[in-house]
Amino acid sequence: MKPDFQKQALIPVIVQDYQTKQVLMMAYTNEEAYQKMIESGETWFWSRSRQKLWHKGEESGHFQKVKGMRLDCDQDTLLVFVEQTGNACHTGAYSCFYDEVIPFDDSDIFADLEKQIADRKAHPVEKSYTNYLLDQGVDKVLKKVGEEASEVIIASKNLDKTELLGEIDDLLYHLFVLMNQTDLSLEEVRKKARERHQIEGNKKEFHTRTAD
Amino acid sequence: MKPDFQKQALIPVIVQDYQTKQVLMMAYTNEEAYQKMIESGETWFWSRSRQKLWHKGEESGHFQKVKGMRLDCDQDTLLVFVEQTGNACHTGAYSCFYDEVIPFDDSDIFADLEKQIADRKAHPVEKSYTNYLLDQGVDKVLKKVGEEASEVIIASKNLDKTELLGEIDDLLYHLFVLMNQTDLSLEEVRKKARERHQIEGNKKEFHTRTAD
Repeated sequence: MKPDFQKQALIPVIVQDYQTKQVLMMAYTNEEAYQKMIESGETWFWSRSRQKLWHKGEESGHFQKVKGMRLDCDQDTLLVFVEQTGNACHTGAYSCFYDEVIPFDDSDIFADLEKQIADRKAHPVEKSYTNYLLDQGVDKVLKKVGEEASEVIIASKNLDKTELLGEIDDLLYHLFVLMNQTDLSLEEVRKKARERHQIEGNKKEFHTRTAD
Repeated sequence: MKPDFQKQALIPVIVQDYQTKQVLMMAYTNEEAYQKMIESGETWFWSRSRQKLWHKGEESGHFQKVKGMRLDCDQDTLLVFVEQTGNACHTGAYSCFYDEVIPFDDSDIFADLEKQIADRKAHPVEKSYTNYLLDQGVDKVLKKVGEEASEVIIASKNLDKTELLGEIDDLLYHLFVLMNQTDLSLEEVRKKARERHQIEGNKKEFHTRTAD
């Protein structure tokens, strides 16, 4: 299916970060810009203010690589998943939607955590616990994984939800450091979980392996 | 800030699931619909086809509760985070964006996994491993948490990425079952992680607690 440009010459395009799922911007496309986007694998729009074709990033260098695309039920709105270079907004903000009318945190903490750990590895920070762990190596992180798992068990048996929440967070954090050290991405973990748990479309039964 | 209805009488509204971050639909609002949305805490739009105010869900019962709202840098597009009752699309699909032009999986596997486990508790399925675990109680799940943490350690020492990925998935899955059993939501876990890791805005240093 393709957008119905007969119905509407300009079709709105919603641009979403393919990893964090943050909505980055909305722009418009016409038939020519749509063709260029499909062919190039990068976003092209029709600029209403400048009345011309607009290859997003042509001036700023902040290109958007197309990772996926969907059309809505009326064929008059596009949703594009992109890998954003730099910032999407001309103001220098990552997303154009920074002006809060009713506050809501739309950050993806797990994606942010993965990125933060990678940043610490690339640019070490004094007194950073993450850098301490990365310097100590995998064995240290594995000891922490074992320790934090034990603390999850103890907190559960204490029936203390606040303690348990903290221990689950500690365990997850150390798993993320381990993933960094073993070169596993959150994307791979998510993909594995999708395959394993057969959720999408409920094609098969969920977790029907025999109890072990 | 509010939308600039002087510039444009009809403002596009992007509607996003506040938990999974899936984009559900796009509709339009005018000044009156916007006021009603702000006052009622539910989505109201201007229907272009019927040329009248439209309280989303008024016919289907599939209302959208507003959890957050943002305006873009030009004040001419709204982004609304909602809790969706039933499906967003009149076709019966959860999202209006079901027509894949370039395939991309935008599901939130962690949110889906949480929901799937809750569904299994509410509607037990024969031979489901999740139901087996839920029936056995918290001690069984805690034993599995300890076991899977050990298997993560062993897989790491084996330098086997495929094995490690599977063990991390196993550990995460059992943590999700534990969260269900201890009445902890993924939202709480994410909130705790955001507080702890101080990522947003980098207001404070990340993980500066002393090494332990």
